[in-house]
Amino acid sequence: MFRNQYDNDSSTWSPQGRIFQVEYASEAVKQGSAVVGLKSKDHAVLVAVKRSPNELASYQKKIIRIDDHMGIAMAGLTSDARVLSNYLRTEAMRSKMVYGRALPVGRAVNAIGDKAQTNTQEYGRRPYGVGLLVIGHDDTGPHLYEFNPSGIVSEYYAYSIGSRSQSARTNLERNFETFQDMSLKELIVQGLRSLRDTLQQGKQLDALNTSIGFVGKDNKMTILDGQDTQEYLDLLDEGEAMDTE
Amino acid sequence: MFRNQYDNDSSTWSPQGRIFQVEYASEAVKQGSAVVGLKSKDHAVLVAVKRSPNELASYQKKIIRIDDHMGIAMAGLTSDARVLSNYLRTEAMRSKMVYGRALPVGRAVNAIGDKAQTNTQEYGRRPYGVGLLVIGHDDTGPHLYEFNPSGIVSEYYAYSIGSRSQSARTNLERNFETFQDMSLKELIVQGLRSLRDTLQQGKQLDALNTSIGFVGKDNKMTILDGQDTQEYLDLLDEGEAMDTE
Amino acid sequence: MFRNQYDNDSSTWSPQGRIFQVEYASEAVKQGSAVVGLKSKDHAVLVAVKRSPNELASYQKKIIRIDDHMGIAMAGLTSDARVLSNYLRTEAMRSKMVYGRALPVGRAVNAIGDKAQTNTQEYGRRPYGVGLLVIGHDDTGPHLYEFNPSGIVSEYYAYSIGSRSQSARTNLERNFETFQDMSLKELIVQGLRSLRDTLQQGKQLDALNTSIGFVGKDNKMTILDGQDTQEYLDLLDEGEAMDTE
Amino acid sequence: MFRNQYDNDSSTWSPQGRIFQVEYASEAVKQGSAVVGLKSKDHAVLVAVKRSPNELASYQKKIIRIDDHMGIAMAGLTSDARVLSNYLRTEAMRSKMVYGRALPVGRAVNAIGDKAQTNTQEYGRRPYGVGLLVIGHDDTGPHLYEFNPSGIVSEYYAYSIGSRSQSARTNLERNFETFQDMSLKELIVQGLRSLRDTLQQGKQLDALNTSIGFVGKDNKMTILDGQDTQEYLDLLDEGEAMDTE
Amino acid sequence: MFRNQYDNDSSTWSPQGRIFQVEYASEAVKQGSAVVGLKSKDHAVLVAVKRSPNELASYQKKIIRIDDHMGIAMAGLTSDARVLSNYLRTEAMRSKMVYGRALPVGRAVNAIGDKAQTNTQEYGRRPYGVGLLVIGHDDTGPHLYEFNPSGIVSEYYAYSIGSRSQSARTNLERNFETFQDMSLKELIVQGLRSLRDTLQQGKQLDALNTSIGFVGKDNKMTILDGQDTQEYLDLLDEGEAMDTE
Amino acid sequence: MFRNQYDNDSSTWSPQGRIFQVEYASEAVKQGSAVVGLKSKDHAVLVAVKRSPNELASYQKKIIRIDDHMGIAMAGLTSDARVLSNYLRTEAMRSKMVYGRALPVGRAVNAIGDKAQTNTQEYGRRPYGVGLLVIGHDDTGPHLYEFNPSGIVSEYYAYSIGSRSQSARTNLERNFETFQDMSLKELIVQGLRSLRDTLQQGKQLDALNTSIGFVGKDNKMTILDGQDTQEYLDLLDEGEAMDTE
Amino acid sequence: MFRNQYDNDSSTWSPQGRIFQVEYASEAVKQGSAVVGLKSKDHAVLVAVKRSPNELASYQKKIIRIDDHMGIAMAGLTSDARVLSNYLRTEAMRSKMVYGRALPVGRAVNAIGDKAQTNTQEYGRRPYGVGLLVIGHDDTGPHLYEFNPSGIVSEYYAYSIGSRSQSARTNLERNFETFQDMSLKELIVQGLRSLRDTLQQGKQLDALNTSIGFVGKDNKMTILDGQDTQEYLDLLDEGEAMDTE
Repeated sequence: MFRNQYDNDSSTWSPQGRIFQVEYASEAVKQGSAVVGLKSKDHAVLVAVKRSPNELASYQKKIIRIDDHMGIAMAGLTSDARVLSNYLRTEAMRSKMVYGRALPVGRAVNAIGDKAQTNTQEYGRRPYGVGLLVIGHDDTGPHLYEFNPSGIVSEYYAYSIGSRSQSARTNLERNFETFQDMSLKELIVQGLRSLRDTLQQGKQLDALNTSIGFVGKDNKMTILDGQDTQEYLDLLDEGEAMDTE
Repeated sequence: MFRNQYDNDSSTWSPQGRIFQVEYASEAVKQGSAVVGLKSKDHAVLVAVKRSPNELASYQKKIIRIDDHMGIAMAGLTSDARVLSNYLRTEAMRSKMVYGRALPVGRAVNAIGDKAQTNTQEYGRRPYGVGLLVIGHDDTGPHLYEFNPSGIVSEYYAYSIGSRSQSARTNLERNFETFQDMSLKELIVQGLRSLRDTLQQGKQLDALNTSIGFVGKDNKMTILDGQDTQEYLDLLDEGEAMDTE
Repeated sequence: MFRNQYDNDSSTWSPQGRIFQVEYASEAVKQGSAVVGLKSKDHAVLVAVKRSPNELASYQKKIIRIDDHMGIAMAGLTSDARVLSNYLRTEAMRSKMVYGRALPVGRAVNAIGDKAQTNTQEYGRRPYGVGLLVIGHDDTGPHLYEFNPSGIVSEYYAYSIGSRSQSARTNLERNFETFQDMSLKELIVQGLRSLRDTLQQGKQLDALNTSIGFVGKDNKMTILDGQDTQEYLDLLDEGEAMDTE
Repeated sequence: MFRNQYDNDSSTWSPQGRIFQVEYASEAVKQGSAVVGLKSKDHAVLVAVKRSPNELASYQKKIIRIDDHMGIAMAGLTSDARVLSNYLRTEAMRSKMVYGRALPVGRAVNAIGDKAQTNTQEYGRRPYGVGLLVIGHDDTGPHLYEFNPSGIVSEYYAYSIGSRSQSARTNLERNFETFQDMSLKELIVQGLRSLRDTLQQGKQLDALNTSIGFVGKDNKMTILDGQDTQEYLDLLDEGEAMDTE
Repeated sequence: MFRNQYDNDSSTWSPQGRIFQVEYASEAVKQGSAVVGLKSKDHAVLVAVKRSPNELASYQKKIIRIDDHMGIAMAGLTSDARVLSNYLRTEAMRSKMVYGRALPVGRAVNAIGDKAQTNTQEYGRRPYGVGLLVIGHDDTGPHLYEFNPSGIVSEYYAYSIGSRSQSARTNLERNFETFQDMSLKELIVQGLRSLRDTLQQGKQLDALNTSIGFVGKDNKMTILDGQDTQEYLDLLDEGEAMDTE
Repeated sequence: MFRNQYDNDSSTWSPQGRIFQVEYASEAVKQGSAVVGLKSKDHAVLVAVKRSPNELASYQKKIIRIDDHMGIAMAGLTSDARVLSNYLRTEAMRSKMVYGRALPVGRAVNAIGDKAQTNTQEYGRRPYGVGLLVIGHDDTGPHLYEFNPSGIVSEYYAYSIGSRSQSARTNLERNFETFQDMSLKELIVQGLRSLRDTLQQGKQLDALNTSIGFVGKDNKMTILDGQDTQEYLDLLDEGEAMDTE
Repeated sequence: MFRNQYDNDSSTWSPQGRIFQVEYASEAVKQGSAVVGLKSKDHAVLVAVKRSPNELASYQKKIIRIDDHMGIAMAGLTSDARVLSNYLRTEAMRSKMVYGRALPVGRAVNAIGDKAQTNTQEYGRRPYGVGLLVIGHDDTGPHLYEFNPSGIVSEYYAYSIGSRSQSARTNLERNFETFQDMSLKELIVQGLRSLRDTLQQGKQLDALNTSIGFVGKDNKMTILDGQDTQEYLDLLDEGEAMDTE
């Protein structure tokens, strides 16, 4: 496909009203390993599959704590994600110091949305090449937001981004109406089940490559890695056993 | 059509005196879901059809409160709309703090018009990819303005922008002379009727995808979503029944 | 015609000593609806035909008051005109506050000429896409100036810009030697007669689409719209009757 | 002629050591109506033919007073000329206020030369498209300088720039050795005679299109237009009569 | 391969979501001589093969001390490495002066990661052409990080970058599970063994071309060159002898 | 010759290590009329042939006084020369005011060399299109320097730049060993003799087109024009007579 | 060879991880006349062959004193060298004033390396077109460094840069192991011998074209030119005589 005239910088519209550089940046998100987010009436949960560049590496961090009430999971360029999570952390700290309260989750995602929007409108900068799922709990309850390179942020009941995330979304769509009243444990297991659908054939979720994050009314933002995830992985298998009965 | 020489940035005129980048940005407005605005001698009303990116998402906000006396509905790039609504909100707050009075609606739309004009004249920035309908009520009564990517703002009796908005405009043109003396309720129903004309065949307005906003002499800017819209949707069906008698 | 090398920005001369971007911007002026200006020894008058984007819109403002002694009529990009009229209004206010006197009309037009000239010489900005007729009355009597995208301002006895303005100019040239001693009323009717020549066949000047502005020794800048113009439109028809006798 | 590589901006040399953008700007000077300057041992004189864009316009000002002891005549882009004359006027005023003396004429022309030079060396600005003849009288007597878009200023006994100015220069070259001892009146008539040589066949100098400026030891900078020029135009015809004897 | 449209600056995404300039910069890393890093539960070690531009040169420094608890080894453009190591040293000093404590190693590598990320997103700068292995010891024990031109930093148990580093990585992967409990001496010898695998046939590690760096709970960052490395090179040969038994 | 890739701006090297824009600027020097500089053990002398753009012009100034102890002669773009001579004059004045001493000649030429170097290294500015010969006398005796568009300054016993300067250089090379002990008068005549060799056939040096400058231990910088040069021109002819004996 | 895509500015990597503009700048170094540097355990020496642009010129300075303990020799663009040597001199002076000690030689070369690195990474500036050999003596003894356009600085026992420097390097490689214990005189003669190998056939080192610089524990930076070099040139010939025995 030949479309070279309008796709070299983010300050140029195509005749069809598209900004190609934003769409290209979104391709980088699709190449990151998958993350899944979902929420009940009390909790919001992130689960992610960690990829290791090779055997010698520690696994990448996929879920990052921003504050006691908020965390993010990322898919895409980790150097870009680091810039955005630093920014979020600074904003969260500023909210506490200046206003004496935790930064509302919606306001937090709008802040990075605005930061990212600038890179979609000005010449000489590229859009961020990373997608985020943001969970948090504030006065209005638990939240799950998606942020993408366009600077658009959307609130979801459940969502998945990254490589093969369509499979996870299909799973979530089939079940999301039941999430509202789930316990935290059920919610996590449900998330893992969706996440598993994004794996290539022959790959498994295990304590090494799985990361779990959650936050809720009575739960500060918590991230589980390694052996701490085994408990939920075991439940996943049980559930699976049941599913296939 | 071959016209590549003059359409890569907004600081270049075409030989015919056109700025193509502004026209391309307008294409992004046409891809947003439709919004309809209309006014009587006492009220100004916005109705919009909300689109959900998929089943898992909350519906996007299409109508946004700016201040007690003013609100906007958007069609196009929501990240750009957020920048403009933040700007409007700041201006409205500044008016109250500095001048001790609500920002006149005409002045408000000129402010975002001027902000947008800059992006149609300077190299290295793209025009905003969003259209707005702005309603408000001030000393000179209710107002309805359209803002588009060129930075031009026009006052209307009734108008519609976004996807398939031409159908709504046709409906409005047939009826707008009767709006002046309508009650708020009649005005809203009239707006919904026009909005319905923008839907694809087989689609319906319902409590999930419909958003209603209004402001008036005795009504602060109010936005209705979900079940709060049902009352008007029911009236719409009644009216429809009558229409087809 | 192939001339692509020298016409992409206003900081490049063509080998023939032309700045094509300025000429292209002038095309935008020709697409605006026509305005006519003329003056007698005591008064300066603007008349304009307002275009409505469609039936639902209020008519655009074509004539704008700058100060008690000065007003402008525009043809072309209204978002650009707004920038220039804001600038003029600020300059007029500054003159009163700093120098305690009304801004001389010639100085006012030079100020916007200089502002516009910058956009014809620097890379990264486009020339304004609007033409203005400026009327005013100061110590040296009534004035009529034309401003165009090149930043050149010229004083005229009578002039017309915008769509089909050549027809109006032909009319004005035939009669302008008689304007000097006309009464304000006669001058307005003469302006309307010239303006009428710019209309497409089958179109008429009426109270909805006609705008009249005037200023004079004993008249502050005044703008007439709607029914207030009818008196002059009636005289126009009478005059016409006489003409064709 | 094909020379596109080195002629798009004034910060690029051609392989032959030329700056094409400066040469192209000079073409704009050649399109302006002609002006002639000449001097005797006591006086410096400018004469110019004013062009009217059309019958409805006042004639353009071709000669502009800068200060009591200095004035300029322009050929080319009048919006550029306005920028330079404003600058000269500011410099002249500054000289009086800061140094308590009239700005020496040579210093004045160097100041605009330096201002113009910048536009011939930096990317993103175009050279000024105007040529000037500057006359003045200071401690070292009367002066005539030419300024052109290159920023070069040269002192002349007599000179002409603008459209068909070569004809005027030929006339001046034939006679300039006699100027030194001429009276002011003779000098003006001599200037008009040269200026007349630049007119297209069938055109005449008359009180409407002729402008005369002079300055001298005992004459403040004076500009004559309209009927004030008739006296000299009459002498011109007499002289002509004599010439053809 | 033809891919010229998206690979000229780091502010442009390719349609596949890649930033080619970052990938090209990584080629410069592959051309540097190899470095190997590895760690036990108490120590972190760097070993590097120094290349001399020719016989007359002192060998380049490949391992650089940043602070008592931290050092780096580089592969790629040494002028870029110098910029980054200066930056790290300044940050380390600042941490001591402002916070009164040694800069945590993870924070240090994120700081240069952020600095490098900017060069992958803004027009007019190129990504750094150097890779780094960073070792350090802080409250959380010994660390080994890799930094690359993308601005991504990853933690490793053992790693190698630079020319032919794949061979070293293969060696490390075969053995890294045994590193955890090794003594410092064993760890160094293990590193040298991996490093040796990166040499071209016929080349040897010797006291002239080998550089060793280590840090640990009870060891300040130490760099050994020249004869100080012989002790370990001797052990390497012994080990080799054993290996081949 | 086709070499378009590397010659459009001075911030780009050609593959052969050349900066073409500097070489192109040097072409402008070659088009200026010739100047000759030479020195004895006590004096430094400049002689130049002045070109008049046409008969009506005063001759251009070719030699300019900078200070009591320093002067320059120029070949090339006079608007660029003016910028540099203004700069030199300011530096000379600053030296007197700040350090209480005349600016050493070598320091002066280095100052303009550095100023010019910037234009050979930064994008968006062109190299100066002028060459200078600088003479001066300071604590270390008389000096002659050449400055060219590259920003390189070289000290000479005798030198010539500008149109046909090669002929002058040939003459100087044949004789320069005799200059050291010449009187000022002899030195000037020798300079004129070399200068004469640059003239086109049929042209002569005369009091109108010749300019002479000198400075020495007991001579402040002096410039002779017009009749003041006749004395030396007469000697030139005498000398010539002798030469051809 | 066709490689136009990646070699126009220094902020673009080639697909092979090269920065062509840096390589092109290095070509300018190869065109400068040769310089040789070498050191013993007590002294560091520079010798250079001076080129004269022609017979009329003083020879260029090739060796420049920076401070009592440091000097440089240059090959390439002398205007660029002047910028760097000015910078070095300022840094050396600053070290004395701020820290009260001579600037360590390694720190000095890193300073210009960092300054040069910027020009290899930012758009709009070209790399410096000059190579330097820097000698100095500080607390750690005598030093010899090479600086090149990439901003890389390397320490050497002996080195040569510039035209035909490969021949000098061959000579140095054959002998450098003997330099350590040489007397200053022997070291200089050895340097001259290497330098002579860079001359074109038929050229000789003589008192006019040879420059010698040295610094040591008990020798402030000293530069010998003209007759002061004869003593060493004579020794060179003696040595030569011996060599060819």
